[in-house]
Amino acid sequence: MVKIGILGVGTVGESVARILKENGDIIEARAGKRIVVEHGVVRDIKRDRGVDIRLSTDANDILDNGDIDIVVELMGGVEEPYRVVKEALKRGKGVVTANKALLAYHRYELQEIAKDTPLMYEASTAGGIPIIGALKSGLSANHILSIQGIMNGTTNYMLTKMIREGADYDSVLKEAQDLGYAEADPTFDVGGFDTAHKLLILASLAYGIEAKPEDILIEGIENISTVDVSFAKEFGYEIKLLGIAKKVDSGVELRVHPTMIGRDSMIAKVDGVMNAVSVIGDAVGETMYYGAGAGGDATASAVIADIVDIVRGNTTPMLGYKRGLEGRLELLSQDDIVTNYYLRMEVDDRSGVLAQITDILGQFDISIESMLQKPHREKGRVKLLFTTHRCREAKIQKAIERLKVLDCIYRDIYMIRIEK
Amino acid sequence: MVKIGILGVGTVGESVARILKENGDIIEARAGKRIVVEHGVVRDIKRDRGVDIRLSTDANDILDNGDIDIVVELMGGVEEPYRVVKEALKRGKGVVTANKALLAYHRYELQEIAKDTPLMYEASTAGGIPIIGALKSGLSANHILSIQGIMNGTTNYMLTKMIREGADYDSVLKEAQDLGYAEADPTFDVGGFDTAHKLLILASLAYGIEAKPEDILIEGIENISTVDVSFAKEFGYEIKLLGIAKKVDSGVELRVHPTMIGRDSMIAKVDGVMNAVSVIGDAVGETMYYGAGAGGDATASAVIADIVDIVRGNTTPMLGYKRGLEGRLELLSQDDIVTNYYLRMEVDDRSGVLAQITDILGQFDISIESMLQKPHREKGRVKLLFTTHRCREAKIQKAIERLKVLDCIYRDIYMIRIEK
Repeated sequence: MVKIGILGVGTVGESVARILKENGDIIEARAGKRIVVEHGVVRDIKRDRGVDIRLSTDANDILDNGDIDIVVELMGGVEEPYRVVKEALKRGKGVVTANKALLAYHRYELQEIAKDTPLMYEASTAGGIPIIGALKSGLSANHILSIQGIMNGTTNYMLTKMIREGADYDSVLKEAQDLGYAEADPTFDVGGFDTAHKLLILASLAYGIEAKPEDILIEGIENISTVDVSFAKEFGYEIKLLGIAKKVDSGVELRVHPTMIGRDSMIAKVDGVMNAVSVIGDAVGETMYYGAGAGGDATASAVIADIVDIVRGNTTPMLGYKRGLEGRLELLSQDDIVTNYYLRMEVDDRSGVLAQITDILGQFDISIESMLQKPHREKGRVKLLFTTHRCREAKIQKAIERLKVLDCIYRDIYMIRIEK
Repeated sequence: MVKIGILGVGTVGESVARILKENGDIIEARAGKRIVVEHGVVRDIKRDRGVDIRLSTDANDILDNGDIDIVVELMGGVEEPYRVVKEALKRGKGVVTANKALLAYHRYELQEIAKDTPLMYEASTAGGIPIIGALKSGLSANHILSIQGIMNGTTNYMLTKMIREGADYDSVLKEAQDLGYAEADPTFDVGGFDTAHKLLILASLAYGIEAKPEDILIEGIENISTVDVSFAKEFGYEIKLLGIAKKVDSGVELRVHPTMIGRDSMIAKVDGVMNAVSVIGDAVGETMYYGAGAGGDATASAVIADIVDIVRGNTTPMLGYKRGLEGRLELLSQDDIVTNYYLRMEVDDRSGVLAQITDILGQFDISIESMLQKPHREKGRVKLLFTTHRCREAKIQKAIERLKVLDCIYRDIYMIRIEK
C-alpha cells in the first residue's frame, strides 16, 4: 500500500481523494499497489469537504509522517509551496504538484533537488491533457520546432463567444464571470499570465530554456474589439490566445498573445473552455493534444497519473533530460520576434492619409499584405485594418510609435500577431 | 552506450537509424546514454539503404550478439516476428516493435514473457502519436468510457476527398493509389482490417479485453456512395472510418466501420491522411490525440521514444496493468451493439411503398428519426435515405433482411452506423 498526503484540499484535492477511492481497483491494477490518502492539510479545518480523510492545518503533519510516501501539493502560491516541496524531496518523499506558478519560478532549482526523488507536475499544464508526458517521453526523438498552446479555458471560452456570436469583450467577460469561468479580478487569465506560466514549463521540456514570466512577451485579450473579430472572420482567421514557443536559427521565441491563425489549422478548431497544445517535432511532424484544461476531476486525473507513475518506479528526469538540452539555444529578445501583423487604427477619411501611413510603414521595410476600410460611427473618420508581410517586432513597434503621432490618426493603434 | 539491432531495415528502419544519428545529441540528453545502431537484419542485402549500418540476413546475428541491448522489430508478418521477439525477450533484450498484426494476435502471450524485460509498441498504433503512452500512463486514473480512433490515413484521405470534393469512391481510390497512399490491393486499409488491429491494442490497454480481429465487427468503406456523402453533409455529419471501443453496462463494444459523426465533434475535424484518437475517461472527460499515423520519420519518432524509455529504465507494464483490469468486462456480441443507423435503399416511386417499409421497421421496434428522398437515374424509382433512433444491431440486421425481399426494393440496402 502507498500512502499519500495532500497539501491543500480544495476542489482538486477533493477530486483526488474521491477518485482514488471510487476508481481504487482499476488504479491498483495499473499501479500494482493500493494508493490511499493518509492525511490532508488545509487552512480552514471547519469547512466540510465531502471526503473522508484525516485533516489538520500543519504541513509538518505530512512532512514528518514517515508512513507517507508521496506528497501532493495543491496549496497555490509560490514561496510557501516551494519551501514545503523542497522539504518533502529532501526527506525522500515523491512529490506531485499542480502548481504552475511554483514551476514557472523555481523549476530549475527543483530539478536539482529532484535528481533522486521524483517530482511530477502533469496537472500544472493544460489540466487533464497528458502533454508533459508527451514532451518528456512520447516525443523524445525530436527537436521541437514549435509549440502552440491554448492553455487557458476562460479566454478560449470568451474568444469563441466573440467569434461565433459577435459579442463584445465586456459582455462576454461578464458572462464568463457569471458562469464561474472567470474570477472577479480576471487579470491572471485574460492578461495571459496563466498561459505564460504553462508555456515556460513546456519550453523547459522542449528546449531547456531558463526564463521567468517577466522575461517574455505577454499580452492579454483585453483590447480585442468586434471589428478585429469581424476582420478575422472575413479573412479566414480565428483569434486564439496562444502560448507560443518556437525555435528559430538564433534562439527560441517565447510569447503569449492573442493570435490570428488560419481557420484550417487544427488548433484553430478548438472551441469553448477546451485546451489544446500543438507540437511540431522535426521527426514526427505536427501532433496535437486536446482536452479539459481545468476542473477538479480532470486535474485530479493528471495528479493521480503522476502518483501511479511514481508508484510504478518510473525514472524519467523531472524536465525530461539528464544532461543539458539544446545548450546553445537562448531566449530571443522580444525585438527579434518575426511574424505577420494585423493593425487597426482610426484615421481621417480623406485623401493623402493612406499615403502617409504606407510611407511610414515603408520606412521600416514593412509591406502590406491586405487592407480593409470599415466605417466609423464618427463622421469624417474610418477604421483602417491592415495585415503585413513578415517583419521584425522591433520594426512594427517603432512604426506604430511613429504612426501614433500623426495628426490624421486618432487614439491607439491596436496590433494582433498572425501565425501562418 | 546502448546498442540496438534492427530487424527489417525498410522505410521505418532507415528513419530510425538516420534520426538516431542526426538527433543523437538531444536523444542522448534525454535518455542519459548514447544510442547507436549496431546491426541490421534484412532480406535483400544488395539493396542500397542510404544508412551506414552493418547488415546481414540472419536474425541470429542480432539475437546472439551479447552487445545488443534492445531489438527493434520492423519485419512485418506475424509468426516469424513472434518467434524472434519471444527469443529476444527470453535472452533479456528489450524489444520495441511497430508490428500491429503481431500484437493483434499475440499481445497476451507476449505480456506473459515481457514481465521482466520491456516490450514496447508505441509505433504500432497511430504512428507518431503517443497514444499508447497516454493510455498506459497519462489516463491511468480513469475508467475508459470510450475510444474513437481515426487510425488509417489512407481511408481518411479518401473520405475527406469524397466529402470535400464530392468525388466517388473508385476515382478517389485510384488517386490514393497514384499518390502511394493506397496499395495495389487496398483491402487491408479500405476494408478496416488495419484499423481493427490497432483498435484491439487500444482495447487491451483500456479494458484488458482479449479479442482477435476475427472476433469483432469490421466493415470497410468500399460501399459508400456519393449519395451517402451528400446526405451526411445535409444533416451535419462527417463520415469517418472509426475504430470504436465503448464500455456499456454489460461489456465492451469493439467495432470498426464507417461512421456518421456530428460535424462539431473534435474527431470529425480531422482531415486528410492525419490520424486522431479520442478517449473519454470518467475523470478526465474527453481527450484527443492527433498527428501523423504513418510515414517513416513519424513512425521512427515513436520507435525511438520507446527505446529512450527502455534506456531510462521505465517499468510500466506492457499493457499498462500488473493485475487483471476490469476483469468482469467481456466483449459484447455484435448483435448487442446499440446505436443509431442510416439506411439507403432504392425503391419503386409509388404510394404504399413507404408504408410497407415503415411497417417492417416498426415490427422490429425501429423508429425513424429523419428521412430524405432523392431522385434515381432510372425512371419510376427513388432513393430513400433514413436515419433511425437507437436500436440493437440484431434488430436492424433482421429488418434489413426482411426489407430486402420486398418487391418494391431493388438491390442491396446499405447501412452506416451513426455515433452521437
